Amino acid sequence: MNNYSERHSVGVVGFRGYSGAELVRILSHHPGVEVVLLEHRSEPEQRPFPLGHKPPTTIPATVQAMRRENLKVVFLGTPADVSLELAPAILEADIKVIDLSGAFRLGDPETFSRWYKERHTAPELLGEAVYGLPEFYRDAIRGARLVANPGCYPTAANLAIRPLLKAQVIDRSRGIICDAKSGVSGAGRKPSLKTSFCEVTENFSAYGIVEHRHVPEVLQNSGLGEREFTFTAHLLPIARGILETIYVRTERVEKAVDLLSIYEDCYANEPFVRLYAPGKVPDLRAVQHTNFCDIGFHFDPETQRATIIAAEDNLVKGAAGQAVQNMNLVLGFEETEALL
Amino acid sequence: MNNYSERHSVGVVGFRGYSGAELVRILSHHPGVEVVLLEHRSEPEQRPFPLGHKPPTTIPATVQAMRRENLKVVFLGTPADVSLELAPAILEADIKVIDLSGAFRLGDPETFSRWYKERHTAPELLGEAVYGLPEFYRDAIRGARLVANPGCYPTAANLAIRPLLKAQVIDRSRGIICDAKSGVSGAGRKPSLKTSFCEVTENFSAYGIVEHRHVPEVLQNSGLGEREFTFTAHLLPIARGILETIYVRTERVEKAVDLLSIYEDCYANEPFVRLYAPGKVPDLRAVQHTNFCDIGFHFDPETQRATIIAAEDNLVKGAAGQAVQNMNLVLGFEETEALL
Amino acid sequence: MNNYSERHSVGVVGFRGYSGAELVRILSHHPGVEVVLLEHRSEPEQRPFPLGHKPPTTIPATVQAMRRENLKVVFLGTPADVSLELAPAILEADIKVIDLSGAFRLGDPETFSRWYKERHTAPELLGEAVYGLPEFYRDAIRGARLVANPGCYPTAANLAIRPLLKAQVIDRSRGIICDAKSGVSGAGRKPSLKTSFCEVTENFSAYGIVEHRHVPEVLQNSGLGEREFTFTAHLLPIARGILETIYVRTERVEKAVDLLSIYEDCYANEPFVRLYAPGKVPDLRAVQHTNFCDIGFHFDPETQRATIIAAEDNLVKGAAGQAVQNMNLVLGFEETEALL
Amino acid sequence: MNNYSERHSVGVVGFRGYSGAELVRILSHHPGVEVVLLEHRSEPEQRPFPLGHKPPTTIPATVQAMRRENLKVVFLGTPADVSLELAPAILEADIKVIDLSGAFRLGDPETFSRWYKERHTAPELLGEAVYGLPEFYRDAIRGARLVANPGCYPTAANLAIRPLLKAQVIDRSRGIICDAKSGVSGAGRKPSLKTSFCEVTENFSAYGIVEHRHVPEVLQNSGLGEREFTFTAHLLPIARGILETIYVRTERVEKAVDLLSIYEDCYANEPFVRLYAPGKVPDLRAVQHTNFCDIGFHFDPETQRATIIAAEDNLVKGAAGQAVQNMNLVLGFEETEALL
Repeated sequence: MNNYSERHSVGVVGFRGYSGAELVRILSHHPGVEVVLLEHRSEPEQRPFPLGHKPPTTIPATVQAMRRENLKVVFLGTPADVSLELAPAILEADIKVIDLSGAFRLGDPETFSRWYKERHTAPELLGEAVYGLPEFYRDAIRGARLVANPGCYPTAANLAIRPLLKAQVIDRSRGIICDAKSGVSGAGRKPSLKTSFCEVTENFSAYGIVEHRHVPEVLQNSGLGEREFTFTAHLLPIARGILETIYVRTERVEKAVDLLSIYEDCYANEPFVRLYAPGKVPDLRAVQHTNFCDIGFHFDPETQRATIIAAEDNLVKGAAGQAVQNMNLVLGFEETEALL
Repeated sequence: MNNYSERHSVGVVGFRGYSGAELVRILSHHPGVEVVLLEHRSEPEQRPFPLGHKPPTTIPATVQAMRRENLKVVFLGTPADVSLELAPAILEADIKVIDLSGAFRLGDPETFSRWYKERHTAPELLGEAVYGLPEFYRDAIRGARLVANPGCYPTAANLAIRPLLKAQVIDRSRGIICDAKSGVSGAGRKPSLKTSFCEVTENFSAYGIVEHRHVPEVLQNSGLGEREFTFTAHLLPIARGILETIYVRTERVEKAVDLLSIYEDCYANEPFVRLYAPGKVPDLRAVQHTNFCDIGFHFDPETQRATIIAAEDNLVKGAAGQAVQNMNLVLGFEETEALL
Repeated sequence: MNNYSERHSVGVVGFRGYSGAELVRILSHHPGVEVVLLEHRSEPEQRPFPLGHKPPTTIPATVQAMRRENLKVVFLGTPADVSLELAPAILEADIKVIDLSGAFRLGDPETFSRWYKERHTAPELLGEAVYGLPEFYRDAIRGARLVANPGCYPTAANLAIRPLLKAQVIDRSRGIICDAKSGVSGAGRKPSLKTSFCEVTENFSAYGIVEHRHVPEVLQNSGLGEREFTFTAHLLPIARGILETIYVRTERVEKAVDLLSIYEDCYANEPFVRLYAPGKVPDLRAVQHTNFCDIGFHFDPETQRATIIAAEDNLVKGAAGQAVQNMNLVLGFEETEALL
Repeated sequence: MNNYSERHSVGVVGFRGYSGAELVRILSHHPGVEVVLLEHRSEPEQRPFPLGHKPPTTIPATVQAMRRENLKVVFLGTPADVSLELAPAILEADIKVIDLSGAFRLGDPETFSRWYKERHTAPELLGEAVYGLPEFYRDAIRGARLVANPGCYPTAANLAIRPLLKAQVIDRSRGIICDAKSGVSGAGRKPSLKTSFCEVTENFSAYGIVEHRHVPEVLQNSGLGEREFTFTAHLLPIARGILETIYVRTERVEKAVDLLSIYEDCYANEPFVRLYAPGKVPDLRAVQHTNFCDIGFHFDPETQRATIIAAEDNLVKGAAGQAVQNMNLVLGFEETEALL
């Protein structure tokens, strides 16, 4: 861990949500930043705190207060409508924004409206928002004022699919199928019957078949068309983790190691993408509580069928960890700071 | 299973709650009754139904409708305040009531108010309400118009403690400690942060220390004083089941088998209380999805310390199963009908 | 429930395994049979029994003892090698066999050897063994001496796929993908690191990618070729239940209701296959502890993509329940006896 | 985090067990040490490793190899019999030992034999072994050659009980009851039916009633007599965490805050014991993946009943974390290094 001469103040709105709380936890181990909690909607504390171990002081999520604290970056761990409300004013105040919602991920306001069922109130920012997937947009992120932190499902899907698309070894006419399974924290912390313990424990269900708001995010960043990508989201009876089983037919791939080479060409120097020997695949345990996205696959040369497994922690590489990775790029820290 | 010449119609209010749904499930296997669902507060269906497998038709929970259906018994799987509102009118219409809430369990309206934080609006019914623990009040239940179905914790606690109290082998001056652990369904189906999957899974907590509304119910039915009984409720990361670990000091007990004899004297002919050889104790698996309360213990003759384990399914013997047991007594069926 | 004048004795080998125990439980509610436990390999009892509630008496799993008890049917809840050892002699003694292992499911001894890694020692029985999927082989099962009870994965897969194959609405050139998820009981009761609590809880993993011994069973009973069917098995952190998400491209299907009609044509009179309205799909809760296989789907007419969800309890419709269904056919009981 | 000029090599035997793996994980974040894995019994790797992310190199667990690596400390994450076999020779080679087994915790070889069912083969080391509970034996640990790292249950129990015993506010004649609940990792990684997923999930059981090998460890370090301390261990369906509910009757305590003062007098400067305001208690989530032991209580002045809740992560403060805390003392590092 480096010792930075200068510590920057950064703020977190939505610090009580699962992603927000994970963000605060990760940032508390970062030697280059000081965290400030920004209260958007006050809420009574639910958990008792040990004596003498209070959380960081909290200030209102107003631009005035953010300026007074001299914040360099504000993370928005808020629903899309709240991000749309807060982001413009924060940027106006010359504070950078890393938004964990879907508000700025889709380049087109109509596509946003279709999937998020609300009007986009800041379309003028869509042009400059940078999609925060460092493995593909690192340089743009470094200079960004507004980073749209990727969705949890699209992070794993894009990391698994893009190298093969780029290498043009996928038979796109046969389509790509992504069977995705996620832990319950992906649904957020707001109580609902669907995420109640008794409904989820010892159960398993599909909840987003073909139609899921993360689909257009995958399409936009992979160049796939709507008909080429079939997606299903399932709810796992666990708190955290996403595992995606992706089915493709390849073209012109002779051996499993050739497929591996394509991945290695992309990710050999990536600190947070790990690959496995052909035939070996990660489980969720391999990535929980880490910022890694692990990718393994099984390949059958005769039929050109590849079954790819991508695993990540939805709260870390799928949300808060990637947000810190983006902050490290934006503020010029080591990209891996606080994340290894 | 017997074949009854006559089938009685019985109604269930609160059929969407966990206890209510379990009640409907048990009653659907009962050859002597026809179930009618009584809608108190309409709610959109959450789960898809297979085609052609719709649930029983539902009628409004009005006394008029209950009469039209010629109901013999109405089960109230409702909160205490709703039971207080509905029970008097139903009884007025000459329909018997088995109430699964705490509304009629405590004999004294002041004690009710202290623990349930609301005024008792039907104190005139407290005198005739019969506490529905068949092992101790079987004859009274047979003739009852209004049965107060016991709470989940008190059922196990009373079944474990009363034989020893009756036999006067407990050193009451040293107190009885009941360390109780329950699955989440005991908290009901209403979504809340405390019962959200991510809060409960891989967690464990104490939530009712000394102060719990089931304590006065144990005291009233065991004759213990408030200072003699110490209770803690804990939340297990499971859907159903209660296990209570009860610590007593005995007097004048020479051997473990003597303690067993005391229990056998009480329960030898009871269909739903099962005993274990000294040193053997039940786990929750032994009782889940059954109407049994299983009791085992470890006894140290030298120090007179007895550690008693009582286990039951909180939704069955602790709620819906016991309610059906009570209905069987009230309507003159075999007591075990639909329960074995 | 019917009352049968005559009760048949039936035996269970492997009654301690999860499928075997479920079988004993179901049979104990069957009015037409008396269960006899057949001890193949003695093992100390692990769970304490309540006093006076001992399990059925156990006799050795010898043909002599089976004859003495006048058994009509013997269930083999044993590994394939034990079934291969026991089945021939039991049949010789004129006792019918319902085998829950994979020993007699595949018609060809070489295919068996390839997938089960052992020689088939009773190939002469493969010709007469009837695959016990009543929805497709009901008449043959009625007259069978030896029933090969289907594997858990193939039961759901065949029920979901066969109607569409028969109706010739699947574009087989694009392949069928079956992404299957199973609870841990599918792996049996023998302790192993892979099925240890700490390894499985809050985890999720793919364990049988393309290569799984249930694949040839699906192929043989659906007529699909090896290249047309891609299968992945995953391990869910739950005890019981299988959910399969199946991806197909259809041909000549205009509307979702047309797809539903195809299923209804097959299953309208089937007691244990339930269908859902288009767009609605079952979760595991809908089928756990039942003998139902529930099938729902999402269909996109424009792209002809159908995503089918099939759910069952791996220990019931996927094993013990289906075995009882087969026994009901073999012994001439109501097919649904003890199963509704 | 400090930067230490000098890095010490330390070894871990038993690195595949749950405590051992946690130890390796914690040590990998320690800036003052380099970890060496010591292979005692070779075992095939079960989990696939990502390419390029192999575990630390492994050497045989021989004294010769330990010397060659110039190890300063060896951790034994081994069963008691293996620790008894290895510890004497390692100490002989002037390498310090921190033993996580029960081999050196009890001062008397007879007591050891009674509870561990084996002969103590190194009684000569019992005199110098220091019990590694830093909150009470910090100075002795600093100078120790052999540290007996405390058991998981006794750590929480002693931290909760000792301050009250020392302050002489417990009515010992009425006994202390410790109702303890532990996650499954406490039972180790060796597969067994008792720790199989299907046996544990949705279940709960008492497994060590009165008789548990951790009882003498509590007695020895608290000064309590066998009759004064009643203990029950229960198995929670979670991977990690211990919560103990402790029942005492106090003497001469006027108010809850007086009880709190007693704890604060002991723990005000302790980095790893956290206290709560009277009436507030920790759950397991508060301590999982941390080296904290959290203590809260409910006190009733009128009856002098105190119910104390102590929570810790059995693999951290109950094993590996405390072992690192002890190593920090032994090697002169900051006591909290790698633990906050």
